[in-house]
Amino acid sequence: MATPMNLPPGRAGITSTIESLHDKATRFFAALDGGGTFREDVWQRPGGGGGVSRIMAEGDTFEKCGVNRSVVEGTMPPQMAQRLGARTGMDGEAVFFVAGMSIVAHPRSPKVPTVHLNVRYFEIAGPDGAVVDAWFGGGTDLTPTYPYPEDAVHFHRTLRSISDRHHPSFYLRFKPWCDHYFVNLHRGEERRGVGGIFFDHLRPGDGGLDGERLLEFVVDVGRGLPAAYGPIVERRRNEPYGERERRFQLVRRGRYVEFNLVHDRGTLFGLQTNARIESVLMSLPPLAAWEYAPSYQPGSFEAELLAMLEPRDWAAGGPTHAGTG
Amino acid sequence: MATPMNLPPGRAGITSTIESLHDKATRFFAALDGGGTFREDVWQRPGGGGGVSRIMAEGDTFEKCGVNRSVVEGTMPPQMAQRLGARTGMDGEAVFFVAGMSIVAHPRSPKVPTVHLNVRYFEIAGPDGAVVDAWFGGGTDLTPTYPYPEDAVHFHRTLRSISDRHHPSFYLRFKPWCDHYFVNLHRGEERRGVGGIFFDHLRPGDGGLDGERLLEFVVDVGRGLPAAYGPIVERRRNEPYGERERRFQLVRRGRYVEFNLVHDRGTLFGLQTNARIESVLMSLPPLAAWEYAPSYQPGSFEAELLAMLEPRDWAAGGPTHAGTG
Repeated sequence: MATPMNLPPGRAGITSTIESLHDKATRFFAALDGGGTFREDVWQRPGGGGGVSRIMAEGDTFEKCGVNRSVVEGTMPPQMAQRLGARTGMDGEAVFFVAGMSIVAHPRSPKVPTVHLNVRYFEIAGPDGAVVDAWFGGGTDLTPTYPYPEDAVHFHRTLRSISDRHHPSFYLRFKPWCDHYFVNLHRGEERRGVGGIFFDHLRPGDGGLDGERLLEFVVDVGRGLPAAYGPIVERRRNEPYGERERRFQLVRRGRYVEFNLVHDRGTLFGLQTNARIESVLMSLPPLAAWEYAPSYQPGSFEAELLAMLEPRDWAAGGPTHAGTG
Repeated sequence: MATPMNLPPGRAGITSTIESLHDKATRFFAALDGGGTFREDVWQRPGGGGGVSRIMAEGDTFEKCGVNRSVVEGTMPPQMAQRLGARTGMDGEAVFFVAGMSIVAHPRSPKVPTVHLNVRYFEIAGPDGAVVDAWFGGGTDLTPTYPYPEDAVHFHRTLRSISDRHHPSFYLRFKPWCDHYFVNLHRGEERRGVGGIFFDHLRPGDGGLDGERLLEFVVDVGRGLPAAYGPIVERRRNEPYGERERRFQLVRRGRYVEFNLVHDRGTLFGLQTNARIESVLMSLPPLAAWEYAPSYQPGSFEAELLAMLEPRDWAAGGPTHAGTG
């Protein structure tokens, strides 16, 4: 039943890989912002492990940007391990080890989309320390306020290119998985953005790739934002906008809050495992709004944005005008 | 096992009582606001029943005020009925009937506290329509941004007075219940406000009161805000405030969002039962903020407010200065 993982770098290697991704991501966002600086907090988790949170508040380009890494270990009831999808028939407490990096960037301008990225390695062991299951998870997704179909095309094409370098089926599998994951089910299946890729329970042997080659894929995803997101920020950040675009941005951010607090497994896992709460909730936007039952004129930019949230094959080249797609 | 309820007014009587409370509450908030008007939406629930939502946006005193009533019926799995606390050993689908009113008022001024009130009647029947359990629930709680201990004292004394008219133990039971309910457990037990009263599963016979007398108590709670909240609004709404108070209000509203989306049973019940989503989420504030790991100087009004969130015997007369309590 169990699929023991024998990753060449081991826990120490995974940890240093995550540290390196985290440092690179911090440097990328500091340079991209062009003015803001990161505050760093190093924290310990009472049950074992800890992390490093870096938050930029009130940057030039980003109203808030969080780049977090954590390496956490501890024990959990076997039911919780099973809910997490671990292949284990254990009756006793499970020993878990998770190493990961998360990024959420909320830009000031409504013309620049919000981006999220996460990569993680998850390991479950029995009470004797023998690993019984291990996998990678992660992904990245884009949440625009303003309907620029070409930005969604660029984001998805870059992700397809990254994925294709590792396995021809990865993008085809992980793109629809993302469309199915980032959904506010309570809002009639409304998606939070235009998606990207999402994967979980990626175990050695998946796609014929061993642990080392899967790690290479995950590392490529983890450093994918300079190519996938950087050019979008560069071309949008100086576009003019007004109160109406800002207002809609705040309402879309409200939906982002709803998804993260009601549905997101990573957030709920953090809330349930005593992780440092300010680091778990760094994904929440600096400011968000809720309007009661807003309606938008057909043809308005708001209506076009909402139409863009319907999943489509962006990498194949979306229509240039979302409302007519 | 089951406690059949034989309420003199019956379902039709309960429904018209809720309608009357709803109309009174709407008139009270329209008059209290002094300028804003309510928009009304009448809605049907696909599975049975419906409601009337009245929302005031951008009023003079209230940035958002929602007054909602609903009478909803349908079926649910027996496990769900049990999770709701129904005393039933049923194996089959449960037939439920819920009639209730909810109020949430988010004032513009950070000197005026947010208030929430809910009263509801819940009935569970077997497939044959025979009622197997029924109860009342409800309560009201105050969420200040600015530390005015005398407002908490007034609110609690009024609730104690209302409760004492019906049973000497109600306030003593329902005040600590409220303190234990409105808690952001993921924030280290931080309360969302200074509480009030909260009760659930109030069945005929509780406290020696029959259904009719329990309904009288619930109706008194349902029309309690003119006395409990009105004078607070009157004396605070013209107090000056600045950007710092407004900023803290938005951060406290962020905690309100966290509670409602992560913990609130009523919201989760709405999300799970296909209630009209805009009515379920009318409780969310018009604007909310998240700051990363804010810290407040000892003696600051923010620190005093946080100190006020620790439960205390407000009705006995709190200290005049929250920080020293």
